Formats: sequence, structure tokens, C-alpha cells
Amino acid sequence: MSLDSSYDDDNIFAKIIRGDVPCVKLYETDAVLGFMDVFPQSEGHCLVIHKSATATNLFDIEQDALAELTAAVQIIAEGVKAGLKPDGVRIAQFNGAAAGQTVFHLHFHIIPVYENTTLAAHGSAGPRTAESLEPVADKIRKAI
Amino acid sequence: MSLDSSYDDDNIFAKIIRGDVPCVKLYETDAVLGFMDVFPQSEGHCLVIHKSATATNLFDIEQDALAELTAAVQIIAEGVKAGLKPDGVRIAQFNGAAAGQTVFHLHFHIIPVYENTTLAAHGSAGPRTAESLEPVADKIRKAI
Repeated sequence: MSLDSSYDDDNIFAKIIRGDVPCVKLYETDAVLGFMDVFPQSEGHCLVIHKSATATNLFDIEQDALAELTAAVQIIAEGVKAGLKPDGVRIAQFNGAAAGQTVFHLHFHIIPVYENTTLAAHGSAGPRTAESLEPVADKIRKAI
Repeated sequence: MSLDSSYDDDNIFAKIIRGDVPCVKLYETDAVLGFMDVFPQSEGHCLVIHKSATATNLFDIEQDALAELTAAVQIIAEGVKAGLKPDGVRIAQFNGAAAGQTVFHLHFHIIPVYENTTLAAHGSAGPRTAESLEPVADKIRKAI
């Protein structure tokens, strides 16, 4: 998908927003949704999306909606930090298949980093079951 | 540096904000500054910082200042996209040395990605001179 592709509402995150596909939720408001990545690069890897902005990527979202989204990234990242006590946290947002984007609904990754633990390649672990993600999700939720 | 370290205003970005160290500027408002990374991972790799929020990392900035910062990330990324026509664009923000953070003033990376070109490891190329970065910077500036 190029950087100028139009939004396709058959993508998996659109299905999650509609409730057609389940997710392990961490945080939700009228505007945004945070949930566990089922292909985690590390323990606690989660994602944040806007629910009403049908944006393929960063080039496709209004400034106010972007502010709502990044405010939620900060809130959930605080939960990851407090709940999991990682040594570091990476925030990543990919635009275009060439940049590593695989779902074409704008999303931010929150990836906790632990010393002496190499990040897994995205997709190399998973898909993880909801049951297996729930204990970590619960630690994050309680810390948000 | 841990995720809870306090802000040290001797860091290189604080010096850039004060004008004590030069940078190749792309975009500036009262709140934010965008400039070329002198250790680029790809042609057009640039950085965006808040000028008044003395935040070590994402856990250390007010929501309004974060919104100003990410709005600028979007504006400059649009310039990178339009000016350089990359195949993709990565946005990255690292918190803590374990996550790859090397300057402890909160910053967002904008990293254009070109098909069939591998990203350089950060720091493997550079420091680049202002003169060598200027032609690419000029393309971005004109497209903002």
C-alpha cells in the first residue's frame, strides 16, 4: 500500500472497532482504543488507534484527532511503564508497506523494552491468544 | 538513563534550542523545532522537539505540549513525503537508553524509507555536515 492509498474499512482494526473481531482491550474512550498486539515484539506490546478517524496513515488524519490519539498513547504508555516496569519504551508508527505498516488503519505501537532481551521481529511470535495476553493486559490496565 | 531520570539542560538539543549549537532547521514555531538528524538512518531523517517543555521523555510532558509536538511531526512528515517522495515514513520515539534513546530531551524521529534501501543503524553514518544535509533539507522545507 502506498502512502496515498484510500482507506479500506475491511481492515482488521476497522473490524475490531465495529466489534466484528475481538481484541484484548486496555483503554477506551469515545475517540480512541488501546489493545494488545497479538503479534507482540515484546511482553506488553500494544496498539492505539482512533475509532472515528478513518485514516490510513499519519497523512490522513485531522490535527485534533491526532492529538486525541497521541494523548491516549501517552496514557497507555504510562500504564505499560508503571504496570510492567520495562527498562525502556519505544513508540513507533509506520506509514506505508515499505515502512513496515501491515494494517492500513493508522496506529501507534507501544513496545516495552527489557534489558538483555532482543525485540522479536513483528509477526514472528503469534498470533497470541486472548487468554495468554490477559495477565499482562491486566497489569497494564490496573496501572492506567 | 532510566525512564525516571530528571531533565539535564546540558543535552545537545537543549543547546540547539538555546542557539549554542547549530542545526539545519526545517520548521520552527514558538513551541517546536524540526531539524535534520546529523546521524541519519536514511536520506531525509529528521527530528522534532518541543522548545519550552523540558521533558526527558514521553512520560515527562504535558498533554497540550505533546499535541503541539505531534502536530509538528505531522506537518514536517508531510514535507518529507511531498519533498522527497519516499515509499514509506517511519515515526519513532524512544524512551530510555534501553529503548535506544541517546539524547535525553524528548524527540520524535521522522525516517523516510525507500524501497530496496536498508536503513542505516543510528550513528553509523555521520556526523553529517550542515552543507551535506542542506540540499535534502531544502527539498523538505519547500514542501512544508
